[in-house]
Amino acid sequence: MKFKIKKNILLDALNDVSKALSSKNIIPILSGIKFNLTKEKLELTASDNDITIKTFIEKSDDLEIIDSGSIVIKGKYILDIIRKLDDDFVNIEKLDDSKVLIYTENSEFNLNGISVSEYPPIDLELTTDFITINVNKFKEIINQTNYASSTDEARVVLTGLNLKTEGNILECSATDSYRLALKKVQLEKKLENDINIIIPSKNLSELYKLLTETVDENIELHIFNNKIICRFSNILFQSRLINGTYPNTTNLIPKETLFDLKVNKRDFYNMVDRASILNNDRDNNVITLEINNKMLKITSMSLEIGKVEEKMNVDCDEKFKISFSSRYMMEALRTINTNDVVLSFVGEVKPILLKESTNEDLIGLILPIRTY
Amino acid sequence: MKFKIKKNILLDALNDVSKALSSKNIIPILSGIKFNLTKEKLELTASDNDITIKTFIEKSDDLEIIDSGSIVIKGKYILDIIRKLDDDFVNIEKLDDSKVLIYTENSEFNLNGISVSEYPPIDLELTTDFITINVNKFKEIINQTNYASSTDEARVVLTGLNLKTEGNILECSATDSYRLALKKVQLEKKLENDINIIIPSKNLSELYKLLTETVDENIELHIFNNKIICRFSNILFQSRLINGTYPNTTNLIPKETLFDLKVNKRDFYNMVDRASILNNDRDNNVITLEINNKMLKITSMSLEIGKVEEKMNVDCDEKFKISFSSRYMMEALRTINTNDVVLSFVGEVKPILLKESTNEDLIGLILPIRTY
Repeated sequence: MKFKIKKNILLDALNDVSKALSSKNIIPILSGIKFNLTKEKLELTASDNDITIKTFIEKSDDLEIIDSGSIVIKGKYILDIIRKLDDDFVNIEKLDDSKVLIYTENSEFNLNGISVSEYPPIDLELTTDFITINVNKFKEIINQTNYASSTDEARVVLTGLNLKTEGNILECSATDSYRLALKKVQLEKKLENDINIIIPSKNLSELYKLLTETVDENIELHIFNNKIICRFSNILFQSRLINGTYPNTTNLIPKETLFDLKVNKRDFYNMVDRASILNNDRDNNVITLEINNKMLKITSMSLEIGKVEEKMNVDCDEKFKISFSSRYMMEALRTINTNDVVLSFVGEVKPILLKESTNEDLIGLILPIRTY
Repeated sequence: MKFKIKKNILLDALNDVSKALSSKNIIPILSGIKFNLTKEKLELTASDNDITIKTFIEKSDDLEIIDSGSIVIKGKYILDIIRKLDDDFVNIEKLDDSKVLIYTENSEFNLNGISVSEYPPIDLELTTDFITINVNKFKEIINQTNYASSTDEARVVLTGLNLKTEGNILECSATDSYRLALKKVQLEKKLENDINIIIPSKNLSELYKLLTETVDENIELHIFNNKIICRFSNILFQSRLINGTYPNTTNLIPKETLFDLKVNKRDFYNMVDRASILNNDRDNNVITLEINNKMLKITSMSLEIGKVEEKMNVDCDEKFKISFSSRYMMEALRTINTNDVVLSFVGEVKPILLKESTNEDLIGLILPIRTY
């Protein structure tokens, strides 16, 4: 293996794959990045057994391929080295199965590598029946739903995002059993076989980071029995799936509501934010919303610290009172991309629904908290 | 106590004094900010017993004083409240000795306060014989010396910055006994009585943060037996001093050197930085510098990881070899404000000196490390 590559190109690719590097480092070789150089391209792979990221750099003026071959290099060191080099181009050459030389005009690194024969085999074959979706749309889905999943491993299915298709409708939902987020999007092309899978939410967060700089292109979702491979740009991102049956979230959403209230999202968010200042240290940051005489009030109190009252005039003749977690409300409000948010109330001990003011694609749901 | 104040003015002042708030919170009342409203101004004070910060806001269009008085308010909550209010102005009113009302048109916070009678008395009287120095100059002093002090409380005098005057020369030094930084500046006016004090380095770091936005004005250093009060803008910053005798650092600096080497600071810094990549996990990040045949080489190696060699052409006919801590070298190089740095070598087991290329005001010193 011997090649010369533009430093920034390699650095970007290393930054991408390194998101799969295990910091826990249970299997030593998984702290390495696998370099595989063919006659046409350089492939980099990293994996923590939970997710795998592979990226490609094609032969070009930025990548001169002198000799193909492969080796595994400790991710931490190769990243640091490439980042800190001042030169535009860098040479990488395998000396033997466990030695690699990285050099520029004035810098020379002799690194211990590991033979690729020790790297676990990872199958990244794609399917022919896959979902294609615009990257921005897909990022929006993750943003608007993934926050609502659970971090409690006791009920492992809830630690993931449920994706299911019914014809050309893709339904994505997450719930921790106290709140829920449900987003429906229309697919351009339906799958031959409908799917119903659960992707670990933390892996989707990693995928989201990889997608930050990707815009205006499509991402392909290739779904298998126990894994999903996402393909975009020059990247393959693989995640395991969670086994189990996801609860039918559609049934949890009330069909009928008492009344709707449309308010400015930013103003309402700030009211909730301020109302929770005095109890933001505690898990249960309970605040109370009250509507009366065309006035919406949000209050909260702590015997030790004091109390808050926030007011807003609203065009609503109802008399209503409900308590809920300010954190859950704020997290749900952050997913609303319209200036106004529509709050739907079902009853004083029933869920609150949140929707964007222009569409019904996204539903946020928060259970109330009983206060006595 | 009753007043109306422009939100941003109050927020800035709260941000300033809150740097003295104790996060450890040993004495509960010290988690509070003391509000004292006179007929002319609002005074805010916070202290953690180690440092005290006091700031003033004068009566103006931005501060309407309705009724003088005073109360102590929990720092964390008042800061959060003021930061999160959307309004331009905020009203603050003491209801009784332990209740304060903070309100705008639509927001109302009833906070539990504490009577000022419980706040420890803090004497912030100034002296008439004080040092006056330009804030930028003073920030530079802190930047160029304070990093070299020790964090080891076992030898407490070394955890501070030593300031001493001899006529109109102010000499500032810090050392952890493995390296040293010494800066001399000329004062415009000499003190009636020379001083020789030790200011805790961590308190100077807090002071530095307060000074970040302060430019082109003077700071006054009022020095007492056991404390220093720094006055600038509308702020008084008080720190305790460390008792004890500071070692005479001037004696530690070699008078004669073998040879000097002038190199580009950025290039040299980057070489050292790269040479330490492979051993930056360990405390002793030892690298070796070698000069031979007009070539400067920096090398380091780790049996487990590999080795690095960095090269630079230099105009120097010496043959020389020395090992030292890359971290210490990089920290010293960061204080050099000229494009070139002058390295002075005294011997292969003697200290290395660093100076700016245009002046002798700053001396950095690093002890070598013996390698066998």
